[in-house]
Amino acid sequence: MALIVQKYGGTSVGSSERILHVARRVWETARQGNQVVVVVSAMGGVTDRLLGLAAEMSPVPSPRELDVLLATGEQTTIALLAMAINQLGGRAVSMTGPQAGIRTDDAHTRARILEIRPDAVRRHLDEGAVVTLAGFQGETPTGRISTLGRGGSDLTAISMAAAIGADLCQIFTDVDGVYTCDPRVVPDARRLNEISYDEMLEMASSGSKVMQARSVECAKKYHVPFEVRSSLHNGPGTLVTEEHQNMESVIIRGISLERDQAKITLNDVPDVPGSAFRIFRALGESGINVDMIVQNVSKSGLARISFTVYRNDIARADEALSPVLSELGGAWMESHGGIAKLSAVGIGMRSHSGVAAEMFEALAEAGISIQMISTSEIKIAVTIAEERCEEAARVVHAAFDLGRTDSPLPLPKSQPQV
Amino acid sequence: MALIVQKYGGTSVGSSERILHVARRVWETARQGNQVVVVVSAMGGVTDRLLGLAAEMSPVPSPRELDVLLATGEQTTIALLAMAINQLGGRAVSMTGPQAGIRTDDAHTRARILEIRPDAVRRHLDEGAVVTLAGFQGETPTGRISTLGRGGSDLTAISMAAAIGADLCQIFTDVDGVYTCDPRVVPDARRLNEISYDEMLEMASSGSKVMQARSVECAKKYHVPFEVRSSLHNGPGTLVTEEHQNMESVIIRGISLERDQAKITLNDVPDVPGSAFRIFRALGESGINVDMIVQNVSKSGLARISFTVYRNDIARADEALSPVLSELGGAWMESHGGIAKLSAVGIGMRSHSGVAAEMFEALAEAGISIQMISTSEIKIAVTIAEERCEEAARVVHAAFDLGRTDSPLPLPKSQPQV
Repeated sequence: MALIVQKYGGTSVGSSERILHVARRVWETARQGNQVVVVVSAMGGVTDRLLGLAAEMSPVPSPRELDVLLATGEQTTIALLAMAINQLGGRAVSMTGPQAGIRTDDAHTRARILEIRPDAVRRHLDEGAVVTLAGFQGETPTGRISTLGRGGSDLTAISMAAAIGADLCQIFTDVDGVYTCDPRVVPDARRLNEISYDEMLEMASSGSKVMQARSVECAKKYHVPFEVRSSLHNGPGTLVTEEHQNMESVIIRGISLERDQAKITLNDVPDVPGSAFRIFRALGESGINVDMIVQNVSKSGLARISFTVYRNDIARADEALSPVLSELGGAWMESHGGIAKLSAVGIGMRSHSGVAAEMFEALAEAGISIQMISTSEIKIAVTIAEERCEEAARVVHAAFDLGRTDSPLPLPKSQPQV
Repeated sequence: MALIVQKYGGTSVGSSERILHVARRVWETARQGNQVVVVVSAMGGVTDRLLGLAAEMSPVPSPRELDVLLATGEQTTIALLAMAINQLGGRAVSMTGPQAGIRTDDAHTRARILEIRPDAVRRHLDEGAVVTLAGFQGETPTGRISTLGRGGSDLTAISMAAAIGADLCQIFTDVDGVYTCDPRVVPDARRLNEISYDEMLEMASSGSKVMQARSVECAKKYHVPFEVRSSLHNGPGTLVTEEHQNMESVIIRGISLERDQAKITLNDVPDVPGSAFRIFRALGESGINVDMIVQNVSKSGLARISFTVYRNDIARADEALSPVLSELGGAWMESHGGIAKLSAVGIGMRSHSGVAAEMFEALAEAGISIQMISTSEIKIAVTIAEERCEEAARVVHAAFDLGRTDSPLPLPKSQPQV
C-alpha cells in the first residue's frame, strides 16, 4: 500500500466524460490498496468564463475578490469528481484548499504557500476515503480565500505530497512525460524514464513548459519524487527525482528550444561601475524578462552589452532604456528579432569535458552560426537564427545520440505500481 | 445611521447587468451612512446548471458533495457583487457562509442553522466595509459546507440580521410586497404597508409564496422586522413586524388562494382510538402533505375523515392508505380533484366576531358552495370548486373591503430611511 497524490489539470477534467474517466483511474488506484489524494484544477474554460464575468464588473477587479471567484472553479470539480468516485462504489470526500489546511500569504492571485496543516486530509485518508482536493487555492492568515497563480495546482499537489509524506506524486497531463526534445521538432525524440530536479528546472526555464519552475523547486526542496504522465492512457511517464549515480552516465538529458526571442545590444556603454546595474534595473522595473547576458569591454574602455528578451518586449525595452542610455553618454541600442535559443541540459556535463565543443561542432558542420553563448553547470545555451532552429535541434539531438533507446532505468523502491 | 441586512434573490442577480444594478442600490444605501450586509443567492439558472452536472456524475449524488457544488453558486455572486461595489468607489468584502460564522447541523441539502458567530462580519462592518454574504450556506460541526434548502437565502438574511442586531432586514424580490390578494386574480388587490408575523405565516402556509414559513418563523422568534420590496424600483414594500394595536383595526389582512388541491374522504372508518393515527402516519411516511382535516362520526360508530392534499399526491395517497384501510375493516377511500382552498387571514379576527359568517354569506350570495371549513385563531379557510376560485377570491376580497386605500401606517422608529 502506498500513499499517492495525483494531479489532473483543466484539460483532463474539461468535461463530464473526462471527469468520469478520471474518477475511474482514481478509483482503480485506490482499489489496489493505495491511499489517494487527487488534486484537480477548474474544468477547462471555466476560469476564462469567470474572468469574463469579473471584467464585466470592473476593468480592474479587486484581487481579493478575484480569488473568491476563481476558487469556485476548483470547488466545482472536486465535488463532481467525488460524486463520480462515490458512484463507482468508492468513498471520496472533497476538500477545498482552506479545508485542507493550505495556508498562504495574502498576495492574492499569486499567493505563496506558507504552511500546510494536513490533519484533516490525513483523517479522511485514515478513514479509507479518497480525498478530492481543490488545486490552486489556499487560505490567508486572516481567513480569506487565496489562489496560487499559474501552475498553482501542480504546486498544491507537490506541497501536499510533501506535507503528508506521500510515496509518490503523479502529475497527469496531456503529454506523456518529458522528452529529450519536442517531438514535433525532432521526430526521434524519446520520452525520458527519469530526470533529475535540476535538469527539469533547466528544461523548464529553457522553454519546455511541462511544469512551472516553482513546483519543481518545491519538489526538490522537500525531496518529493513526482511523475509526469498522460491522463489519456496508462503508459509510463517521466519520473522527476533526486540525482543518482546512474544518471550521470548520460551526458545530455535533453534539448530545449525557445523561439520568439530577440537580441538587444547596447553599444558604447561607458565601462564604469554601475552602468550594468542602471540598465538592468530599468528593464526589471518595466517587467521585462531578460535572459542570457553577455558583455565585452573593448580597449577603448567602452563596453558592449548584449542580452535576449522576448521579441514582443523590444519596444518596451527601448522605452525603458532610452533615458538610461542618454545618461550614459553616447551609448546606443540595436535590436534583432528572429532568433531562437537552443539549450542542452544534463547533469552528466559536470563530470564530462568537451560537451560544449561537441555541440558547437555539430552546429558548425551544419553551417549554423552561433550568436551568443551562455552556460551553467548543467546547461549550455546558444542563440541562433530562428529559421534554422528546428534543424539545429535535430543536429544537436543527433550529435548526443539522444534518439537511441536506452535501457529502462530501475524505479526507486518507494514507487507503487499504479 | 442604521445597520441593515439586504437580500437579493437569484432573479435579481441573474445577469451581469442586474448585479451592477444591485451594486448601485447597495452602494446608495451605504453612502447614506448605513452599515450594510447584502445576502445574495446564486445567479438565476446557475443552480439548475450545477444540478445538471451532478446528475451526469451520479443519479443520486452524495448530498454532502452536492452542497460543496451548489455553494459555488453564491460564492460566485458575492465575489462579483463585491467587485462591482468596489468599482463604484465603495469598499466591499465578500464572505461565504462558513467565513461568516454560520454554523449548521449536518443535514446536507436541508441543514438547519444552529448558531451564528458574527464576529468576522462585525469586524468588516466596523472597518467601514459592505459585506456581501453568500446566502443558503453554512458550515457543519465537522467543517463541511452545508446548504439550507429552499428559501435558504431568506433564512440567511433574517438569521444574520438577528445575530448582528440589525435595525432592519430588507428582502428584495421580483414582487413589490405582500398584497391583499394575488393581483392577477383580484385587480384591485392592494399592497399592504405592513403585516404581522403571524398573518404572514398564515398567508405563507396558504399559498402566498412570497417567503417560506421557516424564514418568517425565524424573524418572529428573534424579533427581526423585515421588509419585502421590489429589486426593480424604489417604491415602498411591505413591512413584516410585531403586532401592534393599529393592526387590529383591520379585520382581514389578506386573502390567499391555493389551487390544484384534492379532497380525499375515508368512509366507514371504525371510530376506535388509533384509527386516525394510523392513517396520518401512513401519509406522513409517504411524504404527503396533508392540510385541512375534518372528521365526523355518525351514530353507527363509523367515522368519515376528509382532508386535502395536492392533486398530484392522490395516487400516492391511495397507495399509502390501501394497507391501512384493509386493516380497518370496511373502510374505503374516495378522492376528488378540482378543488381550491381560499383563506382569509387577519389578527383582527381575534377581537371581532361574525367574520366567518360574513365570508360564508359573500360566497353564498355568489352561489359558490363551500365543501370543507377549517379555522385557526387568525384564519378561516374553505375549499371550493377550483373553476370558481377566482370569482370567490374577488367576492370575499370585496366583502371585506380590502381594495380600498387605507391611510399609510406610521413606520416604527427603528426603520431607517433607505
